[in-house]
Amino acid sequence: MSDKLDLIIVGAGIAGVSAAVYARRSGLTFEIFEPKLVGGQLFYMEKIDNYVGAEPGITGAVLAKRLSDTLENLQISPQKEKVKEIRQKEGFIVSTTNKKQYYSRAVIAATGASFKKLNIEGEDKFTGSGVSYCAVCDGFFFKEKDVAVIGGGNTAVEEALYLSNFANSVTLIHRRDKLRALDYLQKKLKEKNNIRIIYKKTVSGLKGDNKLQGLVLSDEQGKESQLSVDGLFVAIGVRPNTDFCDGLVSTDDWGFIVTDDKMKTSQGSFWACGDCRSRPLRQLITAASEGAIASIEAYKKIKGSYLST
Amino acid sequence: MSDKLDLIIVGAGIAGVSAAVYARRSGLTFEIFEPKLVGGQLFYMEKIDNYVGAEPGITGAVLAKRLSDTLENLQISPQKEKVKEIRQKEGFIVSTTNKKQYYSRAVIAATGASFKKLNIEGEDKFTGSGVSYCAVCDGFFFKEKDVAVIGGGNTAVEEALYLSNFANSVTLIHRRDKLRALDYLQKKLKEKNNIRIIYKKTVSGLKGDNKLQGLVLSDEQGKESQLSVDGLFVAIGVRPNTDFCDGLVSTDDWGFIVTDDKMKTSQGSFWACGDCRSRPLRQLITAASEGAIASIEAYKKIKGSYLST
Repeated sequence: MSDKLDLIIVGAGIAGVSAAVYARRSGLTFEIFEPKLVGGQLFYMEKIDNYVGAEPGITGAVLAKRLSDTLENLQISPQKEKVKEIRQKEGFIVSTTNKKQYYSRAVIAATGASFKKLNIEGEDKFTGSGVSYCAVCDGFFFKEKDVAVIGGGNTAVEEALYLSNFANSVTLIHRRDKLRALDYLQKKLKEKNNIRIIYKKTVSGLKGDNKLQGLVLSDEQGKESQLSVDGLFVAIGVRPNTDFCDGLVSTDDWGFIVTDDKMKTSQGSFWACGDCRSRPLRQLITAASEGAIASIEAYKKIKGSYLST
Repeated sequence: MSDKLDLIIVGAGIAGVSAAVYARRSGLTFEIFEPKLVGGQLFYMEKIDNYVGAEPGITGAVLAKRLSDTLENLQISPQKEKVKEIRQKEGFIVSTTNKKQYYSRAVIAATGASFKKLNIEGEDKFTGSGVSYCAVCDGFFFKEKDVAVIGGGNTAVEEALYLSNFANSVTLIHRRDKLRALDYLQKKLKEKNNIRIIYKKTVSGLKGDNKLQGLVLSDEQGKESQLSVDGLFVAIGVRPNTDFCDGLVSTDDWGFIVTDDKMKTSQGSFWACGDCRSRPLRQLITAASEGAIASIEAYKKIKGSYLST
């Protein structure tokens, strides 16, 4: 058994890093776990203009590097271990990673979310050979090609706009009769002459041998049609990365962890922040703020203090 | 009368700037008012290590400049006018500045708060060089140093407890013969062997050249003594800058504007964010996040949109 820690933080995206910064500054003993690179979803972001305090237009990769530097500056070294399960035992939180077990008095989940899949035949086979979940990551491979985006929210429209800068044509496919995206995004769509929208259809099949060559679309009556494309960008939503704490804390209908406005979950020693949390505005700046709040609240609980700053 | 705007934002500290960034991206028509420099309380901060996304150790002045650049990049020019009064008229918000009146559909208050000062010589000079008004913000810079906290309420005691986690010694100085803080906080104080309390003395002078090195304390008879410290945390109260909206929205006992977790006040077209708001954690990162949330919520109300991002 490891020594008992005050806190463990699961995930080193921007929320987890912010939590770690505040934990260090509060003098807590803790570990932060991240099996991948520090920065999480930042690596899917090309250009960031809405995170005040960072330089306008900073890339996700540069911001991720800055998070690494921030940890290093505070002598925090993330453990490259995957937390597979969390449970309670004798008043402690027991976190089981792929390497060992850690005991702590509190836990902050900052595990983010993953892109939703279409769950149709060939999706995995064509991932990386025509099917993508991130226009910013893979869009450039489709320069002067014909691509489709599936979805109707901000992300789908933003991806379509992004792709239209270098693709030959972009077809936005949405199952409903109108988009959910912000007005100004929809206006931008109309300004582009190489984007068209297909409403009330879904993607029911993928065509091609080794590379994607086309889609099978289905309308509401199940009538099928074909669309030739070189690429398909799936932007139908995200799924929280919360398998490790299944059943331990309350979640919303989509599996996101429910907290109060101080990031506290239904379990007294468990806080959640960032994209794994049920929240109204999924942005970098809100995730970073939530990490700070979760960390200070965990501090209060651990130290029995009622800090009102 | 000016043309009617969608939104006005009062204050261009980090909360107001974040609100403006999101307002621009949402396509709202708006003005942001700031009679002083963009950056607000940043100008009192010497070194910032807890704002993830900015470079570790960035100064408040540099971060303030970056907020200016962020506004400029989005072609937002703050109006250098002071909002003196806000009221409702015929379904609109009427903001009266020192120059004219503005009509808008919504308002976001981001006017911050002012720490009560000791009003002694050298206080401004040493602010950021030993004198601080926030232990959570600046405490970490006093690791293994000797610090003093002045005040006798909950905040002062909480700050002393917080600082005791990493400072070498903490001296709590209170002008009366007993503390006003809650009993359990006072009990915690006694458990700490690196905190001592000096009663019935005030801080009447600050010693040091470029950095604070000691305090002059005065007892009730005016007799002076000296105390060597590296840091002084002034915790004698904070006052929200909310005179302009007196009586229009609900406030807590200390005058801070009460909102729900989406930053909405008791008045349907009025949001508040940052330090003028009643909130559990007064930090730059939470203020920036709240500005974004307030802005998107105002957008939803104005455009009647249901934004799910």
